[in-house]
Amino acid sequence: MPVNYTPPTADSLLPVPGISLGTAAARIKAWDRDDVLFVVAEPGTVAGGVFTQNRFCAAPVTVCRSHLAAQRERDIGFRALVVNAGNANAGTGDAGLIATRATCVKAAQLLDCAPEEILSCSTGVIMEPLPLDRLVEGLPRAQGVARPDGWLAAARAIMTTDTMPKGASRRVRVDGADVTVTGIAKGAGMIHPQMATMLAFMATDAPIAAPLLDRLAREIADISFNGATVDGDTSTNDSFVIAATGKAALAPIRDDADARLASVRVALEAVAVDLAQAIVRDGEGATKFIAIRVESGRDAAECRRIAFAIAHSPLVKTAFFASDPNLGRIVCAIGNAAEPDLDPARVSFWLDDVQVVDRGGRAATYTEEQGQRVMKQAEIGVRVDLGRGVARATVWTCDLSHEYVSINADYRS
Amino acid sequence: MPVNYTPPTADSLLPVPGISLGTAAARIKAWDRDDVLFVVAEPGTVAGGVFTQNRFCAAPVTVCRSHLAAQRERDIGFRALVVNAGNANAGTGDAGLIATRATCVKAAQLLDCAPEEILSCSTGVIMEPLPLDRLVEGLPRAQGVARPDGWLAAARAIMTTDTMPKGASRRVRVDGADVTVTGIAKGAGMIHPQMATMLAFMATDAPIAAPLLDRLAREIADISFNGATVDGDTSTNDSFVIAATGKAALAPIRDDADARLASVRVALEAVAVDLAQAIVRDGEGATKFIAIRVESGRDAAECRRIAFAIAHSPLVKTAFFASDPNLGRIVCAIGNAAEPDLDPARVSFWLDDVQVVDRGGRAATYTEEQGQRVMKQAEIGVRVDLGRGVARATVWTCDLSHEYVSINADYRS
Repeated sequence: MPVNYTPPTADSLLPVPGISLGTAAARIKAWDRDDVLFVVAEPGTVAGGVFTQNRFCAAPVTVCRSHLAAQRERDIGFRALVVNAGNANAGTGDAGLIATRATCVKAAQLLDCAPEEILSCSTGVIMEPLPLDRLVEGLPRAQGVARPDGWLAAARAIMTTDTMPKGASRRVRVDGADVTVTGIAKGAGMIHPQMATMLAFMATDAPIAAPLLDRLAREIADISFNGATVDGDTSTNDSFVIAATGKAALAPIRDDADARLASVRVALEAVAVDLAQAIVRDGEGATKFIAIRVESGRDAAECRRIAFAIAHSPLVKTAFFASDPNLGRIVCAIGNAAEPDLDPARVSFWLDDVQVVDRGGRAATYTEEQGQRVMKQAEIGVRVDLGRGVARATVWTCDLSHEYVSINADYRS
Repeated sequence: MPVNYTPPTADSLLPVPGISLGTAAARIKAWDRDDVLFVVAEPGTVAGGVFTQNRFCAAPVTVCRSHLAAQRERDIGFRALVVNAGNANAGTGDAGLIATRATCVKAAQLLDCAPEEILSCSTGVIMEPLPLDRLVEGLPRAQGVARPDGWLAAARAIMTTDTMPKGASRRVRVDGADVTVTGIAKGAGMIHPQMATMLAFMATDAPIAAPLLDRLAREIADISFNGATVDGDTSTNDSFVIAATGKAALAPIRDDADARLASVRVALEAVAVDLAQAIVRDGEGATKFIAIRVESGRDAAECRRIAFAIAHSPLVKTAFFASDPNLGRIVCAIGNAAEPDLDPARVSFWLDDVQVVDRGGRAATYTEEQGQRVMKQAEIGVRVDLGRGVARATVWTCDLSHEYVSINADYRS
């Protein structure tokens, strides 16, 4: 069960004017559930996206990049996103690309638009052929039931090892008009997004211009999904797509200098952080949610590297699972990721309010009982002070439990 | 239990003329076993060593580096190595350095030599104060029982989460003289040596000159311990020390051009590879031993990075544990570690003799049954062909099992 996460309800996910969502059971795997999502956007919508840095990226990632580029070049919009769960369409070579392109052509026929106006995401097992016929056959059925309040069903249809659907909404007032931001995400394992994320789709009715949306997508991914890690494995399929329908009663927002962007950005960031944390809280086998903040570093990259080293150490993760304040393992992880010129004698760290290390050695005030108390909590903050600058970074992760091994030794079979 | 590893016997570990080993129970932890090792070398012995790259390196690592430098500068020899198990003396600040130096001073008094002729290693829990009094009190007792055939007892005294002692020997004929190489090692978790290793000590009676021994230590670590990984965590204490007593009936070997070095090097490498593989075979919770060879790369660093990415992926490791040919996870790991310019369409890989991926896609000949057959084996070879060069690298690792989580959630408590 996720750590301190209440899943969204049909009411908590606010419709975004201009967006409808429908799902269907296409039996992508031998299961009895909806596994295809068709998100339809009204004409006039634009989209931006960021995708995995994995070199063996999935076919839909390649196609999304190409279609987004075509949308900018030809100044055409975004009309639909097709998502299937159960098959990643990664490591499938040319056959995989052909299958994704055929999916987009079919969706374009249904909407009477260009194939380049369609984006597609897949998630599931890698290196299995995509069952194209079943997927394509499911599309008109999904289209037939698409509706503005379909977000919760959509969040359910894209799940794989997730134990709960993930979604979030915010509504803000901008210049006298209501602006809505709603997003859904999936992901529980193979989570260590690099400049991208697992599957996440967000939409707003704010009229954000396309070039600005591209930049916003990257910036939002950086402060949300790119700070989440479950197991340090960057997926072949990470995709984060954000759509702006422009249906809100506002004149277009074209650049950073527009004062109206600030409140829209806060809402976009809040939804993205909610979704990113939801992925970690539902991390495979997670029993703890751990926020790791590294500060006073020389630059953000250094802080981020050290935070991820702590987050990825299986020894640190198992100590959290055991609620065992075996905190030398955190010292070891810091030492592994640190630059050669970092002076350990300037490094301190805290577990919540308990100082564990004071400038390179065990803090005089630290007691095992204090460490034990914090380690038993379901949510734990780790704060590392590098003592040599003003940069900082935050990463969210979970522990490594028996359940993680069970899930990943059993998944697929 | 280790994967296909027969532990050494008292007879299989050959004495090295000039080296005696004694152990004692110093109760470094609350346990009832020998936990201090005193290796005594006769005058005329020289030593070289390589150590962890972790910035939070342990106090004994700092002292070893300084003493080896002093041995070269002052042209003095190596007289003894003191090892304790149960406490890493890492993350202990100045108090830790003082304790290690005091240990060396005590050992030097017992042997009537300079403290700089002593090396010291510690292994165990990080960030606990070293119980110096008990350690120092154990030294004369260990010295009192030191003997040339003490290698097996020595291998036992340095164990922590190891389930079996690790040691290996080779004897070669060089120029009509017998040359012996014997080594011991410990390590089962926090294993991902970087230019160094967990604790390993090797000795030979070959008369290898000190500067040559320094270089040999690095080269041997690179082709042995630096290719071993259990969990990707580089320890604070990794130390590999090699001693040459010069007792063999040979004139000194001073440089690489010396033809006699070849057979000595083969023996040194064989012992080091045996020890490195033994550490992986006894990896915490290991049920499989996996050799990962990446070839046809642009340079060795690229091959090594990709091999380690496969070896460190928790998803790959749990698939091995489950004997599940979920081999897309290997594709994903390759994609994560690859350079941006690597073309996936040139990458192929094999499980033993079964081709899984042929130039970027699933091999036409591959069947699930073939994959299943290999995945069930206790020893598995993964071979990746990057299709763009002549460089290669090999890495050894083990799987990630429930037992790994149990061991690391329970260790210390």
